[in-house]
Amino acid sequence: MNVEIVNTGSELMLGRVLNTHQQWLCRRLADLGHVVTRQVAIADTGSEIQQAVREALGRADLIITTGGLGPTSDDLTRELIAELLGKKLIANKEVLAHIENFFAKRGRPRPQKTDVETLVPEGAEVFLNQTGTAPGLAMEIGNSQWLVMLPGPPRELRPMFDTFVVPLLKREFADEIFVCRTLLTTGIGESRVQEFVEADLQPLVARGLEVGYCARPGAVDVRLVASGAAAAKLAAEAEAVVQRILGENIFGRDDEEIEQVVVKLLRQKQKTLAVAESCTGGLLANRITDVPGASEIFLGGVVSYANVAKEKFLGVRAETLAAHGAVSEAVAREMAVGARGKFGSDLAIAMTGIAGPAGGTPEKPVGTVFIALASAAGVEVKKFLNVWDRATFKQVTATQALEWLRRTLSA
Amino acid sequence: MNVEIVNTGSELMLGRVLNTHQQWLCRRLADLGHVVTRQVAIADTGSEIQQAVREALGRADLIITTGGLGPTSDDLTRELIAELLGKKLIANKEVLAHIENFFAKRGRPRPQKTDVETLVPEGAEVFLNQTGTAPGLAMEIGNSQWLVMLPGPPRELRPMFDTFVVPLLKREFADEIFVCRTLLTTGIGESRVQEFVEADLQPLVARGLEVGYCARPGAVDVRLVASGAAAAKLAAEAEAVVQRILGENIFGRDDEEIEQVVVKLLRQKQKTLAVAESCTGGLLANRITDVPGASEIFLGGVVSYANVAKEKFLGVRAETLAAHGAVSEAVAREMAVGARGKFGSDLAIAMTGIAGPAGGTPEKPVGTVFIALASAAGVEVKKFLNVWDRATFKQVTATQALEWLRRTLSA
Repeated sequence: MNVEIVNTGSELMLGRVLNTHQQWLCRRLADLGHVVTRQVAIADTGSEIQQAVREALGRADLIITTGGLGPTSDDLTRELIAELLGKKLIANKEVLAHIENFFAKRGRPRPQKTDVETLVPEGAEVFLNQTGTAPGLAMEIGNSQWLVMLPGPPRELRPMFDTFVVPLLKREFADEIFVCRTLLTTGIGESRVQEFVEADLQPLVARGLEVGYCARPGAVDVRLVASGAAAAKLAAEAEAVVQRILGENIFGRDDEEIEQVVVKLLRQKQKTLAVAESCTGGLLANRITDVPGASEIFLGGVVSYANVAKEKFLGVRAETLAAHGAVSEAVAREMAVGARGKFGSDLAIAMTGIAGPAGGTPEKPVGTVFIALASAAGVEVKKFLNVWDRATFKQVTATQALEWLRRTLSA
Repeated sequence: MNVEIVNTGSELMLGRVLNTHQQWLCRRLADLGHVVTRQVAIADTGSEIQQAVREALGRADLIITTGGLGPTSDDLTRELIAELLGKKLIANKEVLAHIENFFAKRGRPRPQKTDVETLVPEGAEVFLNQTGTAPGLAMEIGNSQWLVMLPGPPRELRPMFDTFVVPLLKREFADEIFVCRTLLTTGIGESRVQEFVEADLQPLVARGLEVGYCARPGAVDVRLVASGAAAAKLAAEAEAVVQRILGENIFGRDDEEIEQVVVKLLRQKQKTLAVAESCTGGLLANRITDVPGASEIFLGGVVSYANVAKEKFLGVRAETLAAHGAVSEAVAREMAVGARGKFGSDLAIAMTGIAGPAGGTPEKPVGTVFIALASAAGVEVKKFLNVWDRATFKQVTATQALEWLRRTLSA
């Protein structure tokens, strides 16, 4: 089965926007057993869109377009594809009602420009947009060839793909067996991860297993891919090998985030958490509160950027700050103990460090971090050196704090 | 001039890696006046690479491939393109010396696998790799058509493009004049933005201006593109039109983020800021502290997820919480006033709302938010209804708070 993706949008060709659709759609389709053979991005002008879709129709069983279904003048995909296929566009009442409801819920009048979003090529299946206005569209071109049009905004495209496109694929195309397991590790670098596991995986690679490694800030993914009748068995054997060797460092699998694992563990153990952040500036609290249900176990946090905030909100002593400096083991310790006491939480974790680019000294270079964890058992502090750009520094530090919480809660 | 990009790599097609080359190369090329007409991604197998390059050669003046120049078994681009063009591969002594020096500097023996990286198609220009081993290659195919091959790792591709490809473009292709201005707006939906400006932009569109709109969470970009001799004048006129109509809603231009604008304004006016976050869970503090230099004006924040945190850290009264509920105008007001008092900041902004998916009521549905801004002039509260998924809700709410700060500081 041949699958092609056509991304439309002049903002892509001008390099103003990162094309996240490619990765997301390729990933979802691969997980369903359909590996994308080609992805094309073109500007949203008439001739480009029609030429790209015409070429894809000559090769692919499934074509997915993204973008160009909205209400503005550069949204041309619906019209151009209908024209290419010689299909009439017909105003759809169900879509109109859906869009009217969207604006009514928000207490705003429906803009007349959204009229165009109600137009549907004759014979097309309609995917009502759960998170926006423009519907997705699917057309069987003949001989089991399908063309699917999805809207550009990721928050509209993603739920629409899961709700409508996945069932359509299952209905219209034979299942292909393809297993991809990703084991998520933290605490070891990419080449060391490979050194640890590659010899033991070699016999499975000889039997058709594909292994990939992907380094992310503070984490390394180990990807195990197999296809065909023996895929599940091969992938399970490979997973067992990696589990045996890297067990402690594996925090999750596939699309899990470490903050989801930590929130789940806190809920299971009925423990509450508070955080005290200096150098991460709210990122840790933000990641924890991205998890639905976090409010059950997360009491809150203090972003103590200025020293006065460390003293006033967390009870860090002025003498400690004066004697050791804000980035120190002693201050991290008092921040964690202070947060635990003030919030009345079971656990409190605190971070203080130098994110950079400025603020480093020979003794405490940019990247120096102290993380402290306070619990009923007392308080512990660990020192890290996270030499990265500012944004990566914040991510890596927050991940280290989450990993420490995960290990403590799993113990 | 037609420019096409061919990205090779099976990891792209499996959706395991985000293709950042597309945006980076498209942006750099557009800034040089060459807008990419098509970008294609394919797996790194023989037939796919040759077919994609053959098609591109039939259309484009400049083709840039990425990936497949390394030393491992899936690095096939060099060999396949030489084969396609009927060029012999010849071992290049300068490249060999460069690679030997690369490993000597690191005190490691040169792996024999790197032999393949010294092979150069006859007649090709060589771009020595400043940050790795595999060189880039450029070939004139005839009649001023050029094929450029760049290595896959971004830290190798990017400096190589700037050092070698930019001068090659200036030497081989006529300069094209191209101006792209993006005005960043907030507070108005995408179709309303177009309704406001399109009539007044129409005469400029008739003269060749291209206008694009791009909706992001809480913001809409208006893109103004012009090319040719009159480009600068046309773009400037268009910018003046949009400024006149949407002036108040424009928070920045091109790659600016609203948090950067707010930090810049706070530094200019020498005002300090504190935040009190409930429903945004630390995101606002996180966005502010992403800006280097934020520590000069940002004193810190409280993530008061639990009611007890609102009382203890911000001085919200138990009676107010009991009488109005945590998501209320009265609580937002006390949070902002409390944060300003406790941090001793010039400004304090507070948010309380229902991010969802759970927690809504008929009176206060999911998406209800109260934002309060406290300053020397007093405290004001605004109510919003942000009906989105949890992550978008947090982004939109934080952007509304930043926009309010921007307007207050610009006044």
